[in-house]
Amino acid sequence: MRVSIIGVGLIGGSVGLAARERLNADVTGWDPTPGVLDLACDHGALDRGAPSLEAAVADAEAVFVAAPVGTLPETVTRVLAAIPAECVVTDVGSTKRSIAAAIRDPRFVGGHPLAGAESAGVEHARADLFQDAVWYLTPAADATGTLLERLHRLIRGLGAKPTMIDPATHDTMLAAVSHLPHVVANVLVAQAARALEEKSEQLPATGPSFRDATRVAGANSGIWTDIYLANRDALIERIDDATRRLAEFRALLSNADADGVTAWNEAARTDRRRLLEAQLAGGAVHELRVSVPNEPGVIARLALELGRAGVNITDMALYPAPNQAEGVVALWIAGDEPAQRALTIVEGQGFPVARA
Amino acid sequence: MRVSIIGVGLIGGSVGLAARERLNADVTGWDPTPGVLDLACDHGALDRGAPSLEAAVADAEAVFVAAPVGTLPETVTRVLAAIPAECVVTDVGSTKRSIAAAIRDPRFVGGHPLAGAESAGVEHARADLFQDAVWYLTPAADATGTLLERLHRLIRGLGAKPTMIDPATHDTMLAAVSHLPHVVANVLVAQAARALEEKSEQLPATGPSFRDATRVAGANSGIWTDIYLANRDALIERIDDATRRLAEFRALLSNADADGVTAWNEAARTDRRRLLEAQLAGGAVHELRVSVPNEPGVIARLALELGRAGVNITDMALYPAPNQAEGVVALWIAGDEPAQRALTIVEGQGFPVARA
Repeated sequence: MRVSIIGVGLIGGSVGLAARERLNADVTGWDPTPGVLDLACDHGALDRGAPSLEAAVADAEAVFVAAPVGTLPETVTRVLAAIPAECVVTDVGSTKRSIAAAIRDPRFVGGHPLAGAESAGVEHARADLFQDAVWYLTPAADATGTLLERLHRLIRGLGAKPTMIDPATHDTMLAAVSHLPHVVANVLVAQAARALEEKSEQLPATGPSFRDATRVAGANSGIWTDIYLANRDALIERIDDATRRLAEFRALLSNADADGVTAWNEAARTDRRRLLEAQLAGGAVHELRVSVPNEPGVIARLALELGRAGVNITDMALYPAPNQAEGVVALWIAGDEPAQRALTIVEGQGFPVARA
Repeated sequence: MRVSIIGVGLIGGSVGLAARERLNADVTGWDPTPGVLDLACDHGALDRGAPSLEAAVADAEAVFVAAPVGTLPETVTRVLAAIPAECVVTDVGSTKRSIAAAIRDPRFVGGHPLAGAESAGVEHARADLFQDAVWYLTPAADATGTLLERLHRLIRGLGAKPTMIDPATHDTMLAAVSHLPHVVANVLVAQAARALEEKSEQLPATGPSFRDATRVAGANSGIWTDIYLANRDALIERIDDATRRLAEFRALLSNADADGVTAWNEAARTDRRRLLEAQLAGGAVHELRVSVPNEPGVIARLALELGRAGVNITDMALYPAPNQAEGVVALWIAGDEPAQRALTIVEGQGFPVARA
């Protein structure tokens, strides 16, 4: 299989690595940033760099365009003009309606792997980045069947789980679970930074829950401005929905309606648990809260002990005291049996533990 | 020192443990829930339980009332009626104006330790819960000087950093950095749970950034309904401010104003960094993003290696692939030198690492 990659960063580079290592593919790449192709070859993500986009794709059987959402229509159009007839083209953009609307070519199938993009650059690329990751595909009705099948097989070969979805549903869903949370994180840091400035120069002390809530605030503008704009109608709908919900809660507060506030909070508790469970095919997720002493290495020893017992920690969060010392560590474990095993192990280590 | 604790849960129990272990205090307690006093004595949090609130405080030199915010005025009033003349009374509630307004007694000084309350119950109490934690005190102008001094010394003895603040500033600040983020987390899970229900039964898949943003959703209603209501005017102000900011961003989206969206996002980036730095007296906080392979135990080994080198991990977050395997781990390290040391160690372990 001859694979071509246009834009060799974290995602493009990981496609290259996985295609070479797992599928023995021959991978050619092109990137507009000087030096990236040499870096990518050194890292093993490409067999060779090409002098131009057109040269990179001239002989390809499959092309992955891993460019920012805003530049996708132009770049994909250039690719389609330069490839052979029997070649499939896909992208990896975080919104799908705009590219679906811009490109009418049976050789193109939109795509979006749900894989971590926390550290940019081909030097962070990994052959296992897509292992078991959902990889959305948004084929148009007139997509060439043989090419769609080729892409589907290729993506399975990279280790991912290809999942067909229409572009509108994809964008609605991502607005709710990714784009709105990013907007809200920005709002939270902005209001907190301003909240006390009227009274003093002093910035407020924040705790771990604030840090968790705002971890994605100010994410890379080079990626996110495009995403916000490409999905702006769905995002505006989510903003309006969130604004209505804030107004509802404001009314409960205004009326000092304690029962209403409690019911509202309990509903959120239920929603949170349902969402957590829905995302894990492996069974209900359990949250263990472990109290640990304030000593370097204690978290590590705990995690190591669980690892030795084959318990995989789905997610982990420290809730330190405001001085940043350790305090409580939350461990998320998928599945009833592993969670019970984890509980026994943690208790065996002598730490107080509770199911949250 | 004879200390009395009314309400022996995580916070009250930790006061008891710390007072006994660190100050050799004689600690008496009372709790309305059956069985709690025996548990507290077994755990070492109390020297003895008392048969009534009045009996618990009759001979005390200092009383800590660790009850939900809504019951504080009544409980503190009962305590003040039962104590000797030369006894100081404080509370540990998360809002401070309501209790300040309700109690006019020179023996009372409001308080609020910023210490983890993630796992409830005296069985999670720890003698070091308050080590280096900010402990706000909100003395009224007519507070008895000798009693305030006694409380201040006592709180330092528990390991905390007593910090004087007026009740209104305290509540404004907490509305911005704690209460609003809790409200917003509830809104995020509610809208996400509803977002796709119109189209299908399917709940959307959520990723790690959504989980971080909504970790505190549906927090314990027994505590939070009181907090929301006690601070409702400050919280309403924050909700209105957040609503205005959402509307501003909505207008940028509506106008497809790419420069405006970028500027708004970059401002949030700056605010986030300023807030993170402000909270750490120990120097600027550095975020390292480490790419790690998908293997149990790898995070533990990394954290252990850092612990051995004396590097304390301020905060940690995993960004797994959507399948919940590991992917990128973010490590927060306070101070330039420790962060540089951590970088060297992580690189020495062969993991790609970037400063975020």
